Amino acid sequence: MSPIVTLLTDFGLRDGYVGAMKGVLLQQAGVVGLQLVDLTHEIVPGAIAAGAYVLHQAARWFPAGTVHLAVVDPGVGSARRGLACRIGDHFFVGPDNGLFTHVLGSGAPPCEAHAIVASRFARAEASPVFHGRDIFAPAAAHLAAGGALAELGPAAPTGSLVRLPWPEPEADAGELRGSVVHVDHFGNLITKLPVASGGGLGGMAEIHGQSLRVLRTYSDAPRGALLAVGGSSGLLEIARNGGSAAEALGAGPGAVVKWRPRERP
Amino acid sequence: MSPIVTLLTDFGLRDGYVGAMKGVLLQQAGVVGLQLVDLTHEIVPGAIAAGAYVLHQAARWFPAGTVHLAVVDPGVGSARRGLACRIGDHFFVGPDNGLFTHVLGSGAPPCEAHAIVASRFARAEASPVFHGRDIFAPAAAHLAAGGALAELGPAAPTGSLVRLPWPEPEADAGELRGSVVHVDHFGNLITKLPVASGGGLGGMAEIHGQSLRVLRTYSDAPRGALLAVGGSSGLLEIARNGGSAAEALGAGPGAVVKWRPRERP
Amino acid sequence: MSPIVTLLTDFGLRDGYVGAMKGVLLQQAGVVGLQLVDLTHEIVPGAIAAGAYVLHQAARWFPAGTVHLAVVDPGVGSARRGLACRIGDHFFVGPDNGLFTHVLGSGAPPCEAHAIVASRFARAEASPVFHGRDIFAPAAAHLAAGGALAELGPAAPTGSLVRLPWPEPEADAGELRGSVVHVDHFGNLITKLPVASGGGLGGMAEIHGQSLRVLRTYSDAPRGALLAVGGSSGLLEIARNGGSAAEALGAGPGAVVKWRPRERP
Repeated sequence: MSPIVTLLTDFGLRDGYVGAMKGVLLQQAGVVGLQLVDLTHEIVPGAIAAGAYVLHQAARWFPAGTVHLAVVDPGVGSARRGLACRIGDHFFVGPDNGLFTHVLGSGAPPCEAHAIVASRFARAEASPVFHGRDIFAPAAAHLAAGGALAELGPAAPTGSLVRLPWPEPEADAGELRGSVVHVDHFGNLITKLPVASGGGLGGMAEIHGQSLRVLRTYSDAPRGALLAVGGSSGLLEIARNGGSAAEALGAGPGAVVKWRPRERP
Repeated sequence: MSPIVTLLTDFGLRDGYVGAMKGVLLQQAGVVGLQLVDLTHEIVPGAIAAGAYVLHQAARWFPAGTVHLAVVDPGVGSARRGLACRIGDHFFVGPDNGLFTHVLGSGAPPCEAHAIVASRFARAEASPVFHGRDIFAPAAAHLAAGGALAELGPAAPTGSLVRLPWPEPEADAGELRGSVVHVDHFGNLITKLPVASGGGLGGMAEIHGQSLRVLRTYSDAPRGALLAVGGSSGLLEIARNGGSAAEALGAGPGAVVKWRPRERP
Repeated sequence: MSPIVTLLTDFGLRDGYVGAMKGVLLQQAGVVGLQLVDLTHEIVPGAIAAGAYVLHQAARWFPAGTVHLAVVDPGVGSARRGLACRIGDHFFVGPDNGLFTHVLGSGAPPCEAHAIVASRFARAEASPVFHGRDIFAPAAAHLAAGGALAELGPAAPTGSLVRLPWPEPEADAGELRGSVVHVDHFGNLITKLPVASGGGLGGMAEIHGQSLRVLRTYSDAPRGALLAVGGSSGLLEIARNGGSAAEALGAGPGAVVKWRPRERP
């Protein structure tokens, strides 16, 4: 199979910044048939937590050996480290600012991290405001071409990597409680409550004082009605059949959701 | 040539949903040099008719053998069928909800349709809310890798496929009448009146009580002026040189346009 | 390496217009492993100057031999020429309306331009409103497949190409003065003042009566504070750490920036 590099940034698409990174990737990887795949470039500028969430949800569907280049980097040019890591059988390249929190997970898969030493491979004129193009893209190209992690810089102890706080859902007397972590394009409110933690679908969910049935799919509720479903990433999500739950509820990230898996509707 | 898979959805680009589908396509097709091409991911959520229109306009420019994966699927997880079809020398994969109305056309090109039996090839844990990733992407990957349609499920009679209503333009005493079916990024109002049905460009068009010349291209009208042209898909379109006709007229889908091809300006 | 075609347009992504162009490119190039890379499709409709700026910033990061297909073309179908040029070791295809002003630069790299004669290679039914799909994409495919420039049409003297006005920065008594040429996705205000023209970073910049330190990177200023930096394209840029300078200042293209490189903060 051809080598694959995915890209996730907060750069947007209108300025050609992502295009410049792809030019560097193609130039420096120098391999035939490099697959460049956008995960998203619409992370809200500087929103590391949102980037970390989307990266985790999308990256895991790629084949072994994929290189994921992720740049949400408000501290670009500062003392924060650049990282290249192997986590399980995928590679990740980007700033050490918490962006890899969820792909690192609770440490289960074997992980090898290296701090990128820019001068080893980047061009002399690396811009202090665009490491995505001048440092991280060359590092990702190096890995896509089959280069070794260790050539990018010294090993970094896994325990030293920056991780965002990610409180576990609270469980109390048959009720699970967690907050909304992401609002998607459809207005679905994705919570941090794993469906598995409630023993599978069922019961009632509560948000903003409204009780909602936990159903299998959107169209199991009447058109226009709110419901809860098991989202595509295995997390409980508040949705609206044929509309936006976020809009209908005026809710967003941080809103508290309670789930009583055994409550009868 | 490399196998090509195009993607058209209403998923937007910010959540990584399209990225996840591409990961599955690359993983499961397992072919070198797979070409993944986005048609659009900005169909208004659930707008099957808009998806059907854009799919038809864009898909026909691709080489023989292209697989078109189209997912605008408000009924995901419900009883609606999943389809894989060959229409002429292209393949199409997606929900049987009318999305293929225009590529099916009036039945002219040879068509072979199969209802996708998810369990034949999808992973056990297919999510009832994301068939795009868990059922349609694997089916498209199967076809891109050269797999047979018949392996995806039983044949579905062409006559049984869901089609959206698409009233023919009315013709009366030298006047053709039809409605606006799409407003594009530039604010052009695209009607369902084929230029060929009026015998080629010329005459006068009328919308919202305004009479407009039917010209060859935008800049044949003065800057800022409204006009009609033969659009790039062969349909009459109301435009504005250097601006948005939709905005200038306050018009959108459904607005009635009359065309008198032989009327002198 | 595989042949590369980049695309830059003002078409947006919602109508499938870019998809249609890619279908034509794949169909007509007929080469294995063609790399199609989007630079941007979000140029404001008809904004040739913005397209020219972004094209220049992004294109130069691509490998030798890359074909850049650029279509911001308010005069489509009129008498304006179509061009195919080699500038240095890159190829450019698009309308002769100023879009290539910055990649042409001040004439330094060797340049060979040809006026595209549509009928030599385009399909008979070329639409007068979509040369991107019907003329420029086939011309770019011809070049990507290794075809000669001269086969596209007669040579056009370089001096005859349309160039946008691009006034040089003014210099006076240790002060450089230039205007904002682009506002990026982050709200950074990019000026036309090359950092090199001031002898490198340092000193004070002034915009809308505010004096700002010229620093190395965003996070060298306190969070929320305005500053100036050397942008990733080598031009002085007004920025805000963790926010949008454009919003904070109410400034956009045309705003005047003064830079006194040797002034102490």
